[in-house]
Amino acid sequence: MQLADLSRGLDTIWVVLTAAMILLMEGGFALLEAGFVRQKNAVSIIMKVFVDIAFGALVYYTIGFAIMYGKDWAGLLGTSGFMLGGDLSHIRLNITHDTYWLFQSAFVIAVISIVSGAVAERINFRAYIIYTIVMTGFIYPVAGHWVWAAGGWIASLGMIDFAGSAVIHALGGFAALASAIFIGPRIGKFSPDGKVNIVPPSNLPLASVGAFVLWFGWFGFNSGSTLSATNGSIGHIAVTTMLAASAGGAACILFTMFRYKKADPPMVINGSLAGLVGITAGCSFVSDKAAIVIGAVCGILMVLATEMLENRQIDDPVGAFAVHGVSGSIGTLAVGLFARPELAADAGNGYAGLFYGGGWHLLGVQALGLAIVSVWGFAVTWGAMWLINKFVRVRVSRDDELIGLDVGIHGVPAYSQDQDFIDLDRLKKER
Amino acid sequence: MQLADLSRGLDTIWVVLTAAMILLMEGGFALLEAGFVRQKNAVSIIMKVFVDIAFGALVYYTIGFAIMYGKDWAGLLGTSGFMLGGDLSHIRLNITHDTYWLFQSAFVIAVISIVSGAVAERINFRAYIIYTIVMTGFIYPVAGHWVWAAGGWIASLGMIDFAGSAVIHALGGFAALASAIFIGPRIGKFSPDGKVNIVPPSNLPLASVGAFVLWFGWFGFNSGSTLSATNGSIGHIAVTTMLAASAGGAACILFTMFRYKKADPPMVINGSLAGLVGITAGCSFVSDKAAIVIGAVCGILMVLATEMLENRQIDDPVGAFAVHGVSGSIGTLAVGLFARPELAADAGNGYAGLFYGGGWHLLGVQALGLAIVSVWGFAVTWGAMWLINKFVRVRVSRDDELIGLDVGIHGVPAYSQDQDFIDLDRLKKER
Amino acid sequence: MQLADLSRGLDTIWVVLTAAMILLMEGGFALLEAGFVRQKNAVSIIMKVFVDIAFGALVYYTIGFAIMYGKDWAGLLGTSGFMLGGDLSHIRLNITHDTYWLFQSAFVIAVISIVSGAVAERINFRAYIIYTIVMTGFIYPVAGHWVWAAGGWIASLGMIDFAGSAVIHALGGFAALASAIFIGPRIGKFSPDGKVNIVPPSNLPLASVGAFVLWFGWFGFNSGSTLSATNGSIGHIAVTTMLAASAGGAACILFTMFRYKKADPPMVINGSLAGLVGITAGCSFVSDKAAIVIGAVCGILMVLATEMLENRQIDDPVGAFAVHGVSGSIGTLAVGLFARPELAADAGNGYAGLFYGGGWHLLGVQALGLAIVSVWGFAVTWGAMWLINKFVRVRVSRDDELIGLDVGIHGVPAYSQDQDFIDLDRLKKER
Repeated sequence: MQLADLSRGLDTIWVVLTAAMILLMEGGFALLEAGFVRQKNAVSIIMKVFVDIAFGALVYYTIGFAIMYGKDWAGLLGTSGFMLGGDLSHIRLNITHDTYWLFQSAFVIAVISIVSGAVAERINFRAYIIYTIVMTGFIYPVAGHWVWAAGGWIASLGMIDFAGSAVIHALGGFAALASAIFIGPRIGKFSPDGKVNIVPPSNLPLASVGAFVLWFGWFGFNSGSTLSATNGSIGHIAVTTMLAASAGGAACILFTMFRYKKADPPMVINGSLAGLVGITAGCSFVSDKAAIVIGAVCGILMVLATEMLENRQIDDPVGAFAVHGVSGSIGTLAVGLFARPELAADAGNGYAGLFYGGGWHLLGVQALGLAIVSVWGFAVTWGAMWLINKFVRVRVSRDDELIGLDVGIHGVPAYSQDQDFIDLDRLKKER
Repeated sequence: MQLADLSRGLDTIWVVLTAAMILLMEGGFALLEAGFVRQKNAVSIIMKVFVDIAFGALVYYTIGFAIMYGKDWAGLLGTSGFMLGGDLSHIRLNITHDTYWLFQSAFVIAVISIVSGAVAERINFRAYIIYTIVMTGFIYPVAGHWVWAAGGWIASLGMIDFAGSAVIHALGGFAALASAIFIGPRIGKFSPDGKVNIVPPSNLPLASVGAFVLWFGWFGFNSGSTLSATNGSIGHIAVTTMLAASAGGAACILFTMFRYKKADPPMVINGSLAGLVGITAGCSFVSDKAAIVIGAVCGILMVLATEMLENRQIDDPVGAFAVHGVSGSIGTLAVGLFARPELAADAGNGYAGLFYGGGWHLLGVQALGLAIVSVWGFAVTWGAMWLINKFVRVRVSRDDELIGLDVGIHGVPAYSQDQDFIDLDRLKKER
Repeated sequence: MQLADLSRGLDTIWVVLTAAMILLMEGGFALLEAGFVRQKNAVSIIMKVFVDIAFGALVYYTIGFAIMYGKDWAGLLGTSGFMLGGDLSHIRLNITHDTYWLFQSAFVIAVISIVSGAVAERINFRAYIIYTIVMTGFIYPVAGHWVWAAGGWIASLGMIDFAGSAVIHALGGFAALASAIFIGPRIGKFSPDGKVNIVPPSNLPLASVGAFVLWFGWFGFNSGSTLSATNGSIGHIAVTTMLAASAGGAACILFTMFRYKKADPPMVINGSLAGLVGITAGCSFVSDKAAIVIGAVCGILMVLATEMLENRQIDDPVGAFAVHGVSGSIGTLAVGLFARPELAADAGNGYAGLFYGGGWHLLGVQALGLAIVSVWGFAVTWGAMWLINKFVRVRVSRDDELIGLDVGIHGVPAYSQDQDFIDLDRLKKER
């Protein structure tokens, strides 16, 4: 047994275990989204999560990974590594290329899962499959190449996005926003006079537990992004992750008690997640105290963003944009404010944030990178939806939406209290 | 601190963490099965999972482990290690014997949990406890000894079953089939004219999340089976596990859209699991691409097997045989086709699969081993059920079945919307 | 790469991963408690879990950790480490101080979560937030300092409480008892004539899965408490943890079949947890067989304690005292009986238990430490509740209790079958 073998083994199990934790987040997304939507669509949203993980992994294996991490072409695209074949010698890690792929596949699956919430309760299932292929094979890999790949043009500018507040969450959040606007609000969400109507979430205990599962997975997401178990930042990353999540949750509890005179459960659930999203870019580069500030700000702005979206008659059933788009943006910019010189040096660029003597440079780079990634996510998603809509109607029929996608599209209700065997065809007709 | 201490520590936490992940699969089984059965039996199925984990661990500690991994006697049985005592010096691992026991106990608990689904909604609770003792103390340990123990007679032939497509899943699946046939279909599942009746699953969100939890645990199951964190295959195993699961899910989505004109949620849930079951034997020995093929084939054949079973008037409420028996068999045979020489060498036998120049030898061994394990699981389960039935009626009374096992046997409903305190005895009478 | 770097990396990921597992237990508590209470209070109990994790972490970061592990003052209190600043050089670990904080924060969050169950369905949300601050900033840190910190006065006596049967569970359990008595029983739980009324748990599948999640997290709780991956006890700890849990569950199944003529699901759920609580003090110091005995005894006495509490008209909705207080006490005392000399030496005190030739000394120390911790938890909780009640009524209004805290306090029901958008204000009025 050599030291190098031990080191490789240690890094491998670290990446495999954290990848598994991130993939468990799909269970968290399923719980969260099924809990937030109406009963009649609880299965359909989970079927989308299955599409995310099943198609997402296969598409990313076939083409996405190559475009993202293959040999760089002009800072724009990767060109090798399709089906993990070809020359990947430029990726120098202590783990094998396929282990690296596994970890990255967990990321792309998270991105597409963000979008699934925004189009809940009304998207056509076939259209969603096609969009998933576009997102996991093209939209995310291209943006990811720019920011994260060796040679990517935004990476060259010195942008810091440790575990993806921008690449994962802002991209996913703005794609979610585009798709929510494109597809339009659910029938009845807004009255003709503009009044906002609410349906209570169908299953808040499930949604809450989804948040705890996501919280757990996030330790894998952020700490695992070191890709090496001997990286000295792992403990610090886990601590900032924890504090930001707690601050997001606590801020939301207090803020909603102040604003609505009650601690609002769906907001608190999303507030914790907002804190997690916000710390994702800077977890390795900001202090404990900055993490608390970032988490609290994200928690509160998530509430305001949710209100703002509703006031603009944009229907985002599970708050995907408010949680991921807004907090992802805040988190990306926060690095430009709070990055500490001694920690930023680890990022290989040495740029400190505005509050730590680094001046405006890093903040500018962060803002530019964020803007590009967000516009890219929004615009290409809009274009893809428009194109898909030419061939497969993106929105389900009015009848199916009213019946609910579970029975309407998938032929089975999420919950059944029937205690005897029945004729399923009859059930469908009766509804 | 010596290198050897580090190595032992690394291997120990790897095995403990992956064992914990496998044990969490019991939560996954509970969710999956409670979601698939009718409301009136949702608690009773979970009580069986408690029997699996509680009795399973204690019986395997007392006798099962010794029979499986104790000193070999004639290739047939182990004879030492009862209560982890006696001579176990032939087990040479970098981890302690009791750590090894923990990992193996997680396996036996998975096996018995497979059977629990097939007898759902109608088995007598006492009979199930007795059967659990037989399975975890005898049926599985004996078959496990043959295939996995040093000196086991099927192991000597060169059979490859890395993490148990045969020993865990085919054995469990065929035992499930035997018990489902022995106990007979649920009242009302088949009309007198043979028509198949369906009851929608009571809680598909729970069942889906069960699948994601199982998926997570499977990374522990397959990668952890290396029993050493410095095993060079860990990353590859996790990748093939992921790809097969995704292929199983994706194939099921597309196949059910083609066959039933809708992506069928229960089938998609089971399709992902079928992919996982299928890759379990070969995860370390087949290529990424073969993993995708194996997963897809398992996903599709699971659908057809489910239909076939129903057509033969066999009632397997959660699809235990279709998922574990069929995919376990496919996975075991697939090793005989796809095992790559450079990877198979790691198995210590050097036999390559049919498609990689190894000829028919390995395929023949796999088929033989599979046949023996399956027949063993089926026959001894049938015999055990027959014998148990002499003393404790294996099937609940007609009344209890109609009322449901939750209130009928366990005296409490799974779900209650009662908001006030009530008299439980009255509740039972009213139902 | 040096050996020391590897060692530090290994210990760090071990502590981070196990801390994440313990934090996932909050998801387990949420499931367990939401499943055990009535539907109308399922969200409110989960909101308390959010308070536990959000406020708990922030308070423990700000002051709790310093009081518990800061520089010792007279054996009574820590005095440095507020917001992880100041001199912590007396803490000599292979991991960083903030990583250590993360692990410890997971512990304090578990303690307060124990109390949340005892006051379910009737505590005022604001009062709960204040009590959470008191518990996580003062009550637990002080007791923790006494027993676990270098220089703590009970630690100096040689008390063994490896992962906290006393400090976590007895403390939390007795605090739960005090709060349950102080706040009084739920309306309708006891008839004027003293008759005990029961409401079936609202969602037993959720509660069961909560137990499995807690079981999973417990491997992190107990094994992770080594704080070092090269600690030779990790495997043994995981094994005793597993066996005690299984014994608790199995004993409860058999005992309730004998006593109630049915395997009682809520009791079996709590029985497994009782086994886990019981082994927490001694997991590293008792044998496999002792673990089984401890688990079984805890499982059975948990049933009797639950009955006893009801007979005394004390209303503890989820059995927090019976599970944590009683089993925590048994587990703490059991160390005085079963600690093995060769294992106890690892504890640094060399005291063996009564059954292993150590005489009465260790048992006496355990009993004394347990008594002090329990009285402290009970008395200060009572005092805190009394004081809080002067400013914020600890108990919700009769109307809110009858409507349920979900709609009454948080303005949203846990479960909704409404399929159309509605006016939430109207909903609240109608209930």
